[in-house]
Amino acid sequence: MELRSYENLLSIARLAPLDNPKRIVFGIEAVNQVGEEAKKLKAKNILVVTDENIEKAGLLDKVKAPLDAEKLKYYVYKIPTAEPTMSSAKAITDHVRKNKYDLVIGVGGGSCMDSAKLAAIMATNKGDVESYCASATKAPEPLTEDALPKILIPTTAGTGSEASNTLVIIDGGYKTWITDAKVLADVAIVDPIMTLTCPPRMTAGSGMDALSHLAEAVMVRKWHPISDAIALKGISLVAQNLRKAYYDGNNLEARWGMSLAAMLGGWVIGFPWVGGPATIGHCIAEALGPKWNVPHGVSCAICLPYAMKYNLPVAPERIRLIGEAMGVETEGLNDYEAAEEAVRAVAELACDVNISLALKDYKVPKDELKDFAEYLVNERQYMYDLKNNNPRTITLESITALMEQMWEGEL
Amino acid sequence: MELRSYENLLSIARLAPLDNPKRIVFGIEAVNQVGEEAKKLKAKNILVVTDENIEKAGLLDKVKAPLDAEKLKYYVYKIPTAEPTMSSAKAITDHVRKNKYDLVIGVGGGSCMDSAKLAAIMATNKGDVESYCASATKAPEPLTEDALPKILIPTTAGTGSEASNTLVIIDGGYKTWITDAKVLADVAIVDPIMTLTCPPRMTAGSGMDALSHLAEAVMVRKWHPISDAIALKGISLVAQNLRKAYYDGNNLEARWGMSLAAMLGGWVIGFPWVGGPATIGHCIAEALGPKWNVPHGVSCAICLPYAMKYNLPVAPERIRLIGEAMGVETEGLNDYEAAEEAVRAVAELACDVNISLALKDYKVPKDELKDFAEYLVNERQYMYDLKNNNPRTITLESITALMEQMWEGEL
Repeated sequence: MELRSYENLLSIARLAPLDNPKRIVFGIEAVNQVGEEAKKLKAKNILVVTDENIEKAGLLDKVKAPLDAEKLKYYVYKIPTAEPTMSSAKAITDHVRKNKYDLVIGVGGGSCMDSAKLAAIMATNKGDVESYCASATKAPEPLTEDALPKILIPTTAGTGSEASNTLVIIDGGYKTWITDAKVLADVAIVDPIMTLTCPPRMTAGSGMDALSHLAEAVMVRKWHPISDAIALKGISLVAQNLRKAYYDGNNLEARWGMSLAAMLGGWVIGFPWVGGPATIGHCIAEALGPKWNVPHGVSCAICLPYAMKYNLPVAPERIRLIGEAMGVETEGLNDYEAAEEAVRAVAELACDVNISLALKDYKVPKDELKDFAEYLVNERQYMYDLKNNNPRTITLESITALMEQMWEGEL
Repeated sequence: MELRSYENLLSIARLAPLDNPKRIVFGIEAVNQVGEEAKKLKAKNILVVTDENIEKAGLLDKVKAPLDAEKLKYYVYKIPTAEPTMSSAKAITDHVRKNKYDLVIGVGGGSCMDSAKLAAIMATNKGDVESYCASATKAPEPLTEDALPKILIPTTAGTGSEASNTLVIIDGGYKTWITDAKVLADVAIVDPIMTLTCPPRMTAGSGMDALSHLAEAVMVRKWHPISDAIALKGISLVAQNLRKAYYDGNNLEARWGMSLAAMLGGWVIGFPWVGGPATIGHCIAEALGPKWNVPHGVSCAICLPYAMKYNLPVAPERIRLIGEAMGVETEGLNDYEAAEEAVRAVAELACDVNISLALKDYKVPKDELKDFAEYLVNERQYMYDLKNNNPRTITLESITALMEQMWEGEL
C-alpha cells in the first residue's frame, strides 16, 4: 500500500499542506495602520462590518479615524449583536451583492469578523450561503472565485477569526461553517488596545475559547510540529495572562498576551490536520452552545478538560505537553500522571475565571443528554471526521458517560 | 514621546507586522504535488530554474514527472553551479524578460531558489537588478509590481529560501540581497526525499545555516513571541536530527526533521524584526564567506557560537532559550551559566559534524583581519542596522578582538 494511505496511522506518512494568514500586524496601536493597509489593498469603496456594541464602546471610531485620515470611502454595516445565523448571513449577502465594494473590514468579536468574511466571499461567489456550508450528509460546494480583500480587527481575545480560514453560522439548533483558504484575511490587525473594554465574563469565555483552539490543536490525532510550535506558545500565553486580564481588565500586558494567544489559536486551527479544531471537544461545544444557549467561549471552556480526560488513555504524551506549556511541574511524572496534571490545570484556570464546568449550572436538562449523545455519535461526529481526527474512538457508550460526567461536573 | 518611538528599547512598544509564506506543502512525496499546485496557479508556460548538479542527482526528474502528468509546458533554465552573482542575476533577468512565463519553479539549494525568486520579480519589475539590492549607502528601489507566481522546492535543508522573503546575490566581494513580501513563494513544497542524496559536508553546512537562522532569530534585539514559537521548535529539530542526517544520510526521519527545521528557519528570518537575520552573526558570515571562499553554511556555522558569546553579557536570558531548545540541562543555573552552556552546545554540534570553528583552518590570512573588522564596523553593520537589531553594541575594539578569537578558534 502507498505510504500516503497510512497518514492517519503514522505521523511520518502525513502530508501537511497549509495556507497561512497572509499578513499580520500585531501590537499596541496597530489599529492605526488600517488606513495604510486599506490603501495598499487599493480600496476605493469599503464595507465595514461591525455591531452596535462595538460602536458604543468607541471601538468603531478607532477604525474610522485612520480611514478618514486617508480619505477612504466606507459604509458601516451593523449586524445583529448575536452569533451569525442563516438569516443574518443572507441579509449581508444581499447587501454586498447590491453594492460595489472592493474591500471588507470586519471589526468586533467572532460574529462581526465571520460576517465580514462571509460578505467578502459571497460578493464574488454565486448561489446560496447554505450550499457552501459544511454538513454531515454532503460535501459543500467549493468557492470558485477569490473573495474581496479583507482586513479583520478583533475586539476580543478568543475566536482568532482574524487569522483563521473558517467562518461559523448557526443553522437551526447547531453550528455549521465554511472553511477555505479564500476565507483567510488579507491582513489581520491585532491591537490589544481594542480589547481593554472587553468585560470580565466575555474576557473569560473568549480566553478559554482561545485555549481550547490551542490545546485541541496539540491533542488532535494528526498533530504536527508546525502546529505544535504555534499552539504551545499560545497555551503558555493564556496560562500566564488570562487571570490577569480577567481580574484587571486594564492590564495592557495581559491583554497583549491574550490578543497574541487568540491570534495564534485562530492561525493554528486553520491547518487542515487541526481542522477547526476537530476533536471531541469542539464537536460537543459547537452543538451544546447553540442548543442550550451557552455562549461559544464558555461552551468550549466546559468541553476542553473533559475532552482532554476522554483522550488521556490514548494520547497522554500529547496532553502532557499542554500542561507543560501551562507551566505545570511534571518532573518525575510518567505521561499519564503528567496528563492528569494538565487536565487539572485547565480546570483550575476555568474555575479561577468563574466558569463552572458542570452543565447542570447552565440549565441543561438532564433528560435530554441521552438524545444529545446519540446525535453526537450518529450524526455530528461526521462533520468533524472524528474517526480520523480525534485520538480516542467515539462510541455511544463512552460519549453518553462523558455527557453525564459533564452534567455533574465530575472531572 | 509616542509609545512607538520606544520600539527599539521596549518590547511592549513594538509593532510586529509580518508577511507569511502563503502556502506550504510539507512531507514525504510532497514533490508529487507540484503539478497540481502549478495548475491551481493557472500556469500555462512555466520556467523551471535549477542547476546541473540537481539534474544529475535525478531530482529534476522528480519535478518534471508531475508536471508532465498534468501536461504542463515548461522550459528548464540551468544556472551556474555556484552562488548567484550579479552576472548570473542579469543573465536570468534577460531570459525571463524575453519570454512570456506565467509561473517560476525553483528546484535546488538556495542558489537555484534565489535565482527563481529573482526571475519572478524581474519579469514584472523594470530596471536593473542592482537598483533593488540592499546597500550600506542608499535605500533600494521598492518593487512596484507583483512578481510572477512561484513554487520553490528545496533539495537541501538549510537556506530556508522556500519560505523566506529574501534572495541573496554576491556583488563583488560581498553579499547583498533583495527583501520584500513580493519575494515570498506562493507555494513552498518541502519534501525530505529531495534531500536524501545531499552529501554529508553539504548536509552539515546547510544544517548549521538553518540553526544560525533560528538561533539568531531568538537572539535578535527585537525578539517576539511569534518568532520565538517558530524558531525554538526549529532549534530542537536541528539538535535532534543534524548529527543523524550527517552520519546516516538515508535516515529519512532525520532528513524530515532537518527539512522542517530549515523551512521554519527561512520563515522566521522573513519577519522584519528578525531581518534576515540581522545580528552580528550573519553580518560577519555574509562578509566572510564570499571574501575568503568559505561556503555560506559553514560561514554561518563558524559565526554563530561567537555571535552568541559576543551577545552573552547583554542577552543571557535569550541565549539560554537556544540552549534549552537544544536539550541542554539548565536546572539550577542562572541565565549567564545557562547561556554559556548554550554556546558550548552549538560549538559541540558544529564539531560533531566536522566543521572547524577556527578561521585559520580556512586559509583566512591573519593579517587581513584588522581591515576586515574595520569594514564590518565602519560599513557593513549599517546594512544590518546592527545598532537596532543586535543586542550588544558594536565597537571596533570589540569586533577586532572577536575576529582574533575566531581566527584562533577561542570560544
